[in-house]
Amino acid sequence: MRATTIHGPGDIRFTEVPDPVIAAPTDAIVKVTGSCICGSDLWHFRGENGPIDEPRTIGHECVGIVEEVGPQVRRFKAGDHVLVPFCQCDNTCPNCQVGVQSACVNGAMTASGQAEYARVAQADGSLVRTEGVPDAATMPAMLALTDVMATGWHAAVSAGVRPGSTVAVVGDGAVGLCGVLAASVLGAERIIALSRHADRQRIARAYGATDVIAERGEDAVAALKELTGGVKADAVLECVGTDQAMRTAFDVARAGATVGMVGAPHGVELPLRTMFSKNIGLAGGVAPVRRYLPELLDLTLEGRIDPGRVFDVTLPLDRVAEGYAAMDERRAIKVALTPIS
Amino acid sequence: MRATTIHGPGDIRFTEVPDPVIAAPTDAIVKVTGSCICGSDLWHFRGENGPIDEPRTIGHECVGIVEEVGPQVRRFKAGDHVLVPFCQCDNTCPNCQVGVQSACVNGAMTASGQAEYARVAQADGSLVRTEGVPDAATMPAMLALTDVMATGWHAAVSAGVRPGSTVAVVGDGAVGLCGVLAASVLGAERIIALSRHADRQRIARAYGATDVIAERGEDAVAALKELTGGVKADAVLECVGTDQAMRTAFDVARAGATVGMVGAPHGVELPLRTMFSKNIGLAGGVAPVRRYLPELLDLTLEGRIDPGRVFDVTLPLDRVAEGYAAMDERRAIKVALTPIS
Repeated sequence: MRATTIHGPGDIRFTEVPDPVIAAPTDAIVKVTGSCICGSDLWHFRGENGPIDEPRTIGHECVGIVEEVGPQVRRFKAGDHVLVPFCQCDNTCPNCQVGVQSACVNGAMTASGQAEYARVAQADGSLVRTEGVPDAATMPAMLALTDVMATGWHAAVSAGVRPGSTVAVVGDGAVGLCGVLAASVLGAERIIALSRHADRQRIARAYGATDVIAERGEDAVAALKELTGGVKADAVLECVGTDQAMRTAFDVARAGATVGMVGAPHGVELPLRTMFSKNIGLAGGVAPVRRYLPELLDLTLEGRIDPGRVFDVTLPLDRVAEGYAAMDERRAIKVALTPIS
Repeated sequence: MRATTIHGPGDIRFTEVPDPVIAAPTDAIVKVTGSCICGSDLWHFRGENGPIDEPRTIGHECVGIVEEVGPQVRRFKAGDHVLVPFCQCDNTCPNCQVGVQSACVNGAMTASGQAEYARVAQADGSLVRTEGVPDAATMPAMLALTDVMATGWHAAVSAGVRPGSTVAVVGDGAVGLCGVLAASVLGAERIIALSRHADRQRIARAYGATDVIAERGEDAVAALKELTGGVKADAVLECVGTDQAMRTAFDVARAGATVGMVGAPHGVELPLRTMFSKNIGLAGGVAPVRRYLPELLDLTLEGRIDPGRVFDVTLPLDRVAEGYAAMDERRAIKVALTPIS
């Protein structure tokens, strides 16, 4: 098949690779009908996840049609249209049972989402069926559910957002914007988005942000402190993963707050003394997408959320490299990829 | 007055110091009828909280009789018997309102608990009245409420202990033992205490520990893993504050667990990658004693908890230095101090 492959920092190609195959009896092969590029793909693209010794497929967000299933797959058959959570899971192990499907003991991660076909481990546990193939208008929302919307939701749940909360959202990428949307649905009274980009600010406001802070670092903290009468935020969504973002997250957290982290941490040093003296907690991690998918799918189909607005560029799959460049240079918030014939 | 003073690492004396005075109209002066030595006093005693430039009073756990109140104190008068939470608070500020009285914006810490008199800031918010002077049999429990019992309780609450939980308690000092007791009252089904000392193991079992692990480090982790069928603990109470204890706490935490930390962190490096990949949270900090005191006092008076069992040595106040040495050398779990005439 043809797939997106990464060959080194900044080197994304669309190449011919072996077809994925049913390797375990619980596997399924999905023909990809829509995929996209994740902010976390950029860590690899920028060489910040260690060296890339040999070319490999990349991409973990996709929806598609079941092409083939292994002999132990019971709930899905060829032809079913499905959402593929980026972290696959059996949905029955002890970790799945407590809602941490992202740490499933039989879990795997979608490895060729930006391709013609993807292998899905633990298909019965991982996949969620949808009615038919989403149309072009619905596809972006469906794609967002497979990662960024569920991840923003996880940030809000982990941070303990509840009705009446004052929430700060650090990060104005697709996940941060989805975090704003999640906080809004969960009943937050005040949602303060930290964003310097006019296009992202617009989406944040459309998603429910009541305030936007364009400053960074100490100035952002001062601005948020003023907005909240000196109290700061009850719940903070950390949707970046850098040390600066994490520091800002803790700096805008009030005593007793929780920082919900979903940005994969890179070079982060936690302010443990402040956490201890102010009782500021840290929760979250890799989002258990499968846990939230049914609820988020319902919210989407009911029209209560439209997570697809985070996509501002759509490209055919064979131009995926342009998509990476656009996101890396922050010319695009998030890039959707359409199948090529 | 005569008070316990620290002059340098290992140098505890009982000396003459100026009487505490009403410095703010919300202050009270309490004549100490019982006090004790805290595990956290040992950080100072061991020189691990930085240099001690000049002699100062030490001790933050006491109960007593109100001697004098400032003109703005409304709820207490001379002669009232009171519990003095180690962290004083107005109990009305935004932080107090969300249950973090230990980060009260007008807060202070009891500074001369191991003395004849102690000043209490924000007396109306801080103090909790008891019926008369506790007798000798009740005094240890009352003393435990002013810090260690409330701190162990905070660890359990922060870790999210609930009915049916499997709980691991790291640390067999007075706080860890109180954490076991708290987990038991909160309905934990299984409570695994990590303890190498027979006397502490006995108290842990009396407080509700269903299992005791005497191993340390990796062996302790392996033992706990076996006890829990490979799943590990739903909630972990970290009651020490060293790097090794924190590492053990995270190592015995299952995916989705929360580590409730109440040991003041010293030289701790958090396993952030594991926290992220397994969604293991960290919560807790300095215990908001005042928040829990009414409930814990009721539980004690109803005979449902007896936190006083953590005291195994009682000394007159002028022999306080012996008490520090006994706790430092782990010959005593916790030392109570009685007034001298």
